[in-house]
Amino acid sequence: MPGNSFGQAFRFTTWGESHGPAIGCVIDGVPPRIPLSEADIQPFLDRRRPGQSRYTTQRQESDEVRIVSGVFEGETTGTPLALVIENQDQRSKDYGDIKDKFRPGHADYTYWQKYGIRDYRGGGRSSARETAMRVAAGAVARRVLAHLLGEEQVAIRGALVQMGADSVDRLRWDWAEVDRNAFFGPDAAMAEIWAARLDEARKNGSSLGAVVEVVAQGLPAGLGEPVYDKLDADLAKAMMSINAVKGVEIGEGFAAAALNGEENADELRMEDDEVAFLSNKAGGVLGGLSTGQDLVVRFAVKPTSSILSPRRTVDRFGQETEIVTKGRHDPCVGIRAVPVGEAMMALVLADHLLRHRGQIG
Amino acid sequence: MPGNSFGQAFRFTTWGESHGPAIGCVIDGVPPRIPLSEADIQPFLDRRRPGQSRYTTQRQESDEVRIVSGVFEGETTGTPLALVIENQDQRSKDYGDIKDKFRPGHADYTYWQKYGIRDYRGGGRSSARETAMRVAAGAVARRVLAHLLGEEQVAIRGALVQMGADSVDRLRWDWAEVDRNAFFGPDAAMAEIWAARLDEARKNGSSLGAVVEVVAQGLPAGLGEPVYDKLDADLAKAMMSINAVKGVEIGEGFAAAALNGEENADELRMEDDEVAFLSNKAGGVLGGLSTGQDLVVRFAVKPTSSILSPRRTVDRFGQETEIVTKGRHDPCVGIRAVPVGEAMMALVLADHLLRHRGQIG
Amino acid sequence: MPGNSFGQAFRFTTWGESHGPAIGCVIDGVPPRIPLSEADIQPFLDRRRPGQSRYTTQRQESDEVRIVSGVFEGETTGTPLALVIENQDQRSKDYGDIKDKFRPGHADYTYWQKYGIRDYRGGGRSSARETAMRVAAGAVARRVLAHLLGEEQVAIRGALVQMGADSVDRLRWDWAEVDRNAFFGPDAAMAEIWAARLDEARKNGSSLGAVVEVVAQGLPAGLGEPVYDKLDADLAKAMMSINAVKGVEIGEGFAAAALNGEENADELRMEDDEVAFLSNKAGGVLGGLSTGQDLVVRFAVKPTSSILSPRRTVDRFGQETEIVTKGRHDPCVGIRAVPVGEAMMALVLADHLLRHRGQIG
Amino acid sequence: MPGNSFGQAFRFTTWGESHGPAIGCVIDGVPPRIPLSEADIQPFLDRRRPGQSRYTTQRQESDEVRIVSGVFEGETTGTPLALVIENQDQRSKDYGDIKDKFRPGHADYTYWQKYGIRDYRGGGRSSARETAMRVAAGAVARRVLAHLLGEEQVAIRGALVQMGADSVDRLRWDWAEVDRNAFFGPDAAMAEIWAARLDEARKNGSSLGAVVEVVAQGLPAGLGEPVYDKLDADLAKAMMSINAVKGVEIGEGFAAAALNGEENADELRMEDDEVAFLSNKAGGVLGGLSTGQDLVVRFAVKPTSSILSPRRTVDRFGQETEIVTKGRHDPCVGIRAVPVGEAMMALVLADHLLRHRGQIG
Repeated sequence: MPGNSFGQAFRFTTWGESHGPAIGCVIDGVPPRIPLSEADIQPFLDRRRPGQSRYTTQRQESDEVRIVSGVFEGETTGTPLALVIENQDQRSKDYGDIKDKFRPGHADYTYWQKYGIRDYRGGGRSSARETAMRVAAGAVARRVLAHLLGEEQVAIRGALVQMGADSVDRLRWDWAEVDRNAFFGPDAAMAEIWAARLDEARKNGSSLGAVVEVVAQGLPAGLGEPVYDKLDADLAKAMMSINAVKGVEIGEGFAAAALNGEENADELRMEDDEVAFLSNKAGGVLGGLSTGQDLVVRFAVKPTSSILSPRRTVDRFGQETEIVTKGRHDPCVGIRAVPVGEAMMALVLADHLLRHRGQIG
Repeated sequence: MPGNSFGQAFRFTTWGESHGPAIGCVIDGVPPRIPLSEADIQPFLDRRRPGQSRYTTQRQESDEVRIVSGVFEGETTGTPLALVIENQDQRSKDYGDIKDKFRPGHADYTYWQKYGIRDYRGGGRSSARETAMRVAAGAVARRVLAHLLGEEQVAIRGALVQMGADSVDRLRWDWAEVDRNAFFGPDAAMAEIWAARLDEARKNGSSLGAVVEVVAQGLPAGLGEPVYDKLDADLAKAMMSINAVKGVEIGEGFAAAALNGEENADELRMEDDEVAFLSNKAGGVLGGLSTGQDLVVRFAVKPTSSILSPRRTVDRFGQETEIVTKGRHDPCVGIRAVPVGEAMMALVLADHLLRHRGQIG
Repeated sequence: MPGNSFGQAFRFTTWGESHGPAIGCVIDGVPPRIPLSEADIQPFLDRRRPGQSRYTTQRQESDEVRIVSGVFEGETTGTPLALVIENQDQRSKDYGDIKDKFRPGHADYTYWQKYGIRDYRGGGRSSARETAMRVAAGAVARRVLAHLLGEEQVAIRGALVQMGADSVDRLRWDWAEVDRNAFFGPDAAMAEIWAARLDEARKNGSSLGAVVEVVAQGLPAGLGEPVYDKLDADLAKAMMSINAVKGVEIGEGFAAAALNGEENADELRMEDDEVAFLSNKAGGVLGGLSTGQDLVVRFAVKPTSSILSPRRTVDRFGQETEIVTKGRHDPCVGIRAVPVGEAMMALVLADHLLRHRGQIG
Repeated sequence: MPGNSFGQAFRFTTWGESHGPAIGCVIDGVPPRIPLSEADIQPFLDRRRPGQSRYTTQRQESDEVRIVSGVFEGETTGTPLALVIENQDQRSKDYGDIKDKFRPGHADYTYWQKYGIRDYRGGGRSSARETAMRVAAGAVARRVLAHLLGEEQVAIRGALVQMGADSVDRLRWDWAEVDRNAFFGPDAAMAEIWAARLDEARKNGSSLGAVVEVVAQGLPAGLGEPVYDKLDADLAKAMMSINAVKGVEIGEGFAAAALNGEENADELRMEDDEVAFLSNKAGGVLGGLSTGQDLVVRFAVKPTSSILSPRRTVDRFGQETEIVTKGRHDPCVGIRAVPVGEAMMALVLADHLLRHRGQIG
């Protein structure tokens, strides 16, 4: 009933608040005898880590992960993996202003309504700081996929495809470019436009929304558990559970509504004795099962709600007031959502791979 | 691990194939002493029932539901509710053509890859016939919501808001219109345009996609279980699990990506001593919890893959071939997805209401 | 949260009341392409069926099972299996006497306290009639075990080892004898004594308790999921969930408390290049995992609470009264618990085999 | 699928190995606004802590628990509670002898068979060290029960009732005595006999088994979720999952098999306008639901397998050998199982109380 676990066969549970002593997770169901160390996880945390460009929060966290159980002599043992990251930059500051006020667009009001108590320091449990553990768990999921499907087989990559109203040009898509700019953008020209737009938004005390695309290549066909735990259904849940996400689509997604049947259904032919689809409108999922084509998921991230422009709100005593959210905030939370989206993709796939193996072998 | 159940506290499990003797479901976790009979369920099945206009499949099913356990002397007992619908129109026909061929855009290929066996009669388990049980279970969920929150409190309504490239005009939105046309459309003028477009598509042996919107009014604030079973995450999963759905969004959804922080975050004021939001860009969810505002979900339905135009495909022996999908198919499956989307909304809400009550009281 | 499902990877959910129109179950997670028909299930139901000797209830039920989904052309499809048994002998009688009174030793009082409503006809959901579906599901579990481990590999057998104060002589144990007497007793001489004792109890309007032993042979080592879903923990739950069971033990069980360390720990040697235990005090489980030795479980069944001797009780209006439970009741419910215990053993093993395969391969 | 979590509504997950850097647990589903600090947990850990008499292992652990998330300003927030205990006495020793040998009666062989790898230091994950986290989580469960049912309402107490062949005299039962002797024994005279017997066993390099009884008083009627998650079924699982437990019984338990129906069924009368049972053979459970009487559970603990007497075994290379298990081991693990059994009782009750509240209110 409680909601802090994800997955069934590869199941992780996260804990910790933004300004508590540490955050962590437990991963249960990891297959045994997979080589694993902190070095397999840290690079993914480093990608997500804040403070690496002027476009993300200046909070300074080394986000150093420690494996405290489940690995023995360099290999997983099949028992629970526990990962911990100490919080370092718990800046001792005066929360007076947001302690009692509900920040518009934030979880302040709803947590208060649900629990009758909230840890107001940096958002507590509702903070995007929690996503660091998703990235850490996702790195373990990647090792599981590599171990079971072949080291070079599966690639899971994400990119920012839209910021504000500006989308990438898919003709200029270059995966290598993704790690060269501050936005995880696959289109170098667009990255420059985004830089200008985001600088302007920051200057205005505003923020921008974004769309992220995550692609998994090299999957076997048949992953997914109809009719409720379909692969796309679990991906939709996974992505929608990321902070600030407001929409998820697979393949053509919402654009499929405007297509007709001939345009949308991917035809099949044989190629080198293998079944081959002539297009991938489906985004790699049919009937809730992977087709073996690229699995393509996109999700929309709303603009950061923590902005410097004063906004009308109320406090928990029922008084009307105004709020200005100072502090260190990403002007576009969609950027750092890229490694988080990749991690959720890896986590869903590892879970479904083990579930599939349980029933089918 | 298997995937034919949905929900945790209000948990339903469906079974049955398109052309088997019956379909059914078990609902476990229904609170006791709620008045319930078939008359509470049948009207919702009747709304979804095919054969009611020339725009849906001509398959003739009375879809008469029977409650076979869990109700005693007109009230729920708290023990499992079992619902059964006998399949009537299992037209004895020659499936020769699709028996061995993979229909493009269908689950044929992926089921074959996963299970190595498939019930090819009408799609078997992958058929949208399964959604009848979602609608039946959803009707029970509505009774639970009414019983716990007040008979007149919660309203869950859906409408078709786009067919092909044509969207409704929200200024002409009229809920009463929804039940007057063949499309569950809230805009009478648009319904006429849709009729023309869909007649044309049918004539051409083609099909159209659509977008459905479902709205729940009258919810308490605080429903949802962070950080993975957030209310919007479970709704995304619920809607994406419906046949042919390719995208889900909440509130502004994908459009939020193009807004800035000031435009997107809903400000708060006091109204009659109650907290009131000045807008509802969030669609009724913040931090994964209901805000108490209208809960607004939209999902995209791809155009029917079963079309009369010949399409290239392969068969299970690896031979290239063509296929024409005859038979009785909806030219726009998005239409009948409206009552299904409403049902999934009711099911998610009933589940979260009971989960919330368990932890919070 | 609700409790009418069992298992995780091989998951079954039962529904139905003693005097409703039918009882049934859904089994989700069955591996595909396993040959299966009603003929694989019916013999196990026949063993449990009442009315076969004067020592069981005279209720006449043919208990004919029907598979209504999940099998196509004689093989499982991997989709949910639905099984249904119509109730036949819903004798229309006057329940006036027990309608309002709480039968001592029965669930009447507790169901009333929990749900505030109860189906008093034959115990409703709390009736042992529900165990028929356990036996049916267990028969499917046996097919899964045979299919995955080898047709001749695994044997699951149960026997009555004690009735009242009289226990079998293990030196006279003969599995072939179990199906020859009315008690599933492995000791022919003891069966005669039991017959006399039970005739006497019946004559006195009384009833007797019993102990059942279930043994699984031919298992691989390593089944079980520490540290909470240990194999013995899940077996304990499975057996304790059977109606009227009050105790469960593995191997030496309670007798192990009186042994010392040297007596209890099974030593190991090599035999034909295989690890062999020199004894089986552990009953086939160490650290919650199967050892590969015989898995031995015993459970105690209390004497039937429905007896002809008048007993003091109260009714739901708070009035003190007496009750005589007429009707058709087993004088020793432990007898028919033998096939039920075997079924629960098979169900736990099938579930753990699939869970193990998911994580380990 | 993996097995390191317990409970559904009040759900805890443990991690950590005997000789890793720390052990810990995450508890998800704790109701908000319950006052909680380490001081509520530490006393229960202190009761279980080794090294307090010559009858338990001399391993020195302060077992100091830290709450690292889920509590804010002294109250639970409703978000996951994380508890951590650092391991202190990870004596750096030579494990050469047991590194490759399978200790009889231990999980060494089965973990090796299952996972193909094992952390041999002190048993790794299979060590009873894990039970410290059960006790910590159980202390939190006690706070939940006190908060929801009334501070003075529920009492959960355990006692050792048998060691070796020697059982307590129930006429001399004194709960106050339990904390006065080294055995958690309720019978002072028997405690002296046990002391002599256990000294002798230790001198002989042997060990003794035991039986533990746990009683919960003050429960409401109606807790439990038929028909698989019955209260007694979940208790059986909970207790059987404790290291070295081989049997579980409720109320009369195995002795009920030798009673007849008149003796076993507890009659009902009215007392001060309340329903009152005239006996408690049922041990507080009927039909899988609590009756409101004392809930009485007993479990058998096998004698410690780690003994100084040399035993025959094999190693992982298939060589026959002998083993002497030196090191610091409890000569009767049943003693320290008393607080663990109490904790599991509290955990099952907290879970069922929240589950009940979810469905029934």
